Amino acid sequence: MGDGEITLIDIRESVFAENDGQAAIVRDRLADHGVFMLNVLASPGAGKTTLIIETIRRLPDVRIAVIEGDITSQIDAERIAAQGVPAAQVNTGGLCHLDASMVLAALRSLDLGALDVVIVENIGNLVCTADFDIGAAVTVVLLSVPEGDDKPAKYPLIFETSDACLVTKADYLAAGRFDLARATRDVLAINPGSAIIPVSSETGEGMEAWTSMLKQWMKVQ
Amino acid sequence: MGDGEITLIDIRESVFAENDGQAAIVRDRLADHGVFMLNVLASPGAGKTTLIIETIRRLPDVRIAVIEGDITSQIDAERIAAQGVPAAQVNTGGLCHLDASMVLAALRSLDLGALDVVIVENIGNLVCTADFDIGAAVTVVLLSVPEGDDKPAKYPLIFETSDACLVTKADYLAAGRFDLARATRDVLAINPGSAIIPVSSETGEGMEAWTSMLKQWMKVQ
Repeated sequence: MGDGEITLIDIRESVFAENDGQAAIVRDRLADHGVFMLNVLASPGAGKTTLIIETIRRLPDVRIAVIEGDITSQIDAERIAAQGVPAAQVNTGGLCHLDASMVLAALRSLDLGALDVVIVENIGNLVCTADFDIGAAVTVVLLSVPEGDDKPAKYPLIFETSDACLVTKADYLAAGRFDLARATRDVLAINPGSAIIPVSSETGEGMEAWTSMLKQWMKVQ
Repeated sequence: MGDGEITLIDIRESVFAENDGQAAIVRDRLADHGVFMLNVLASPGAGKTTLIIETIRRLPDVRIAVIEGDITSQIDAERIAAQGVPAAQVNTGGLCHLDASMVLAALRSLDLGALDVVIVENIGNLVCTADFDIGAAVTVVLLSVPEGDDKPAKYPLIFETSDACLVTKADYLAAGRFDLARATRDVLAINPGSAIIPVSSETGEGMEAWTSMLKQWMKVQ
């Protein structure tokens, strides 16, 4: 028995051209106000919202706002707003990723002149989100330990297009089911320039390294 | 500050009509051979492949084949083939879900006359996979404990359209970070007919209940 055949339908070229134009407008608006934008990608449940909240707590002098992307619900935006920072919720109603036009609409609800950083929490998805430039200066992908060390090999594009990989829920490494060396090797094979930082919002491990890198990016943007 | 605006683009109606026609052909082919097909959905890393392997091990008298959907790689098909059962790998090359035409192509590589059950492991994704009828008799969605108990509220469609929800990696419930009562309540609010079974491939918890339900479905199809 051979492998199954592969059927591909390409509807993507024109969608991408339109999106890239909108992403350029997003970049112009952010540059006008000197605002740094970070795009946070991951599977559902990898700990995106919790990481963003811990980042906000550790950077009290940085003026941060958050754009929350979700299919539906405001659960994450409410968690962010409870931290006392502005949050804009984008509900895609079914689409599996944010695009630049959605981010542009969300930016209109934020006072960019009063901000240093906009963090975008994208839809929980390792596939579609990797394809769309939303105009961010930097993209990070989270890989949670309970998801398994084979994800970089199985979803290579998102690890290739992200500037860094945060290995979240690192407190679960003690269970011995996740081979950090394998995950690191696979990420670097796809993307030799990627930073890889194990972090845990439970124990605080790696959070200093993560926020230092973020501050470095903000300086050089 | 209000919520961000919502921008939606609907390219989906014609895609769905085409897919539904292909799903009907899949159903006809399976019915001709008396084969039961199960569609397994989940986030990346929720334990789909491991659950399928444990199911195969616990049903030695059932003739099972597996269709593995992945963006790229044959990692999962190799794990399945190591169990001595036929495996067909569909690589979508970037698409975030299987559709009925891909399943139809994969079925051509299987000897349906020698099978009782085809298990389809869909792409790891809680969004796109919920939208496409692939011709399966039954669909189950896996929700792993480390992902968090808020996923039914955040990705309702997939819990609404699935016949059952398996709460995987139930051995992590002891960590106390996942409220099973909340997840159960949210799934039943979306889909009152859904079965909900906590399972653990590590400890074997719930596997008897799961395989019993599967055998019941096979009888009544």
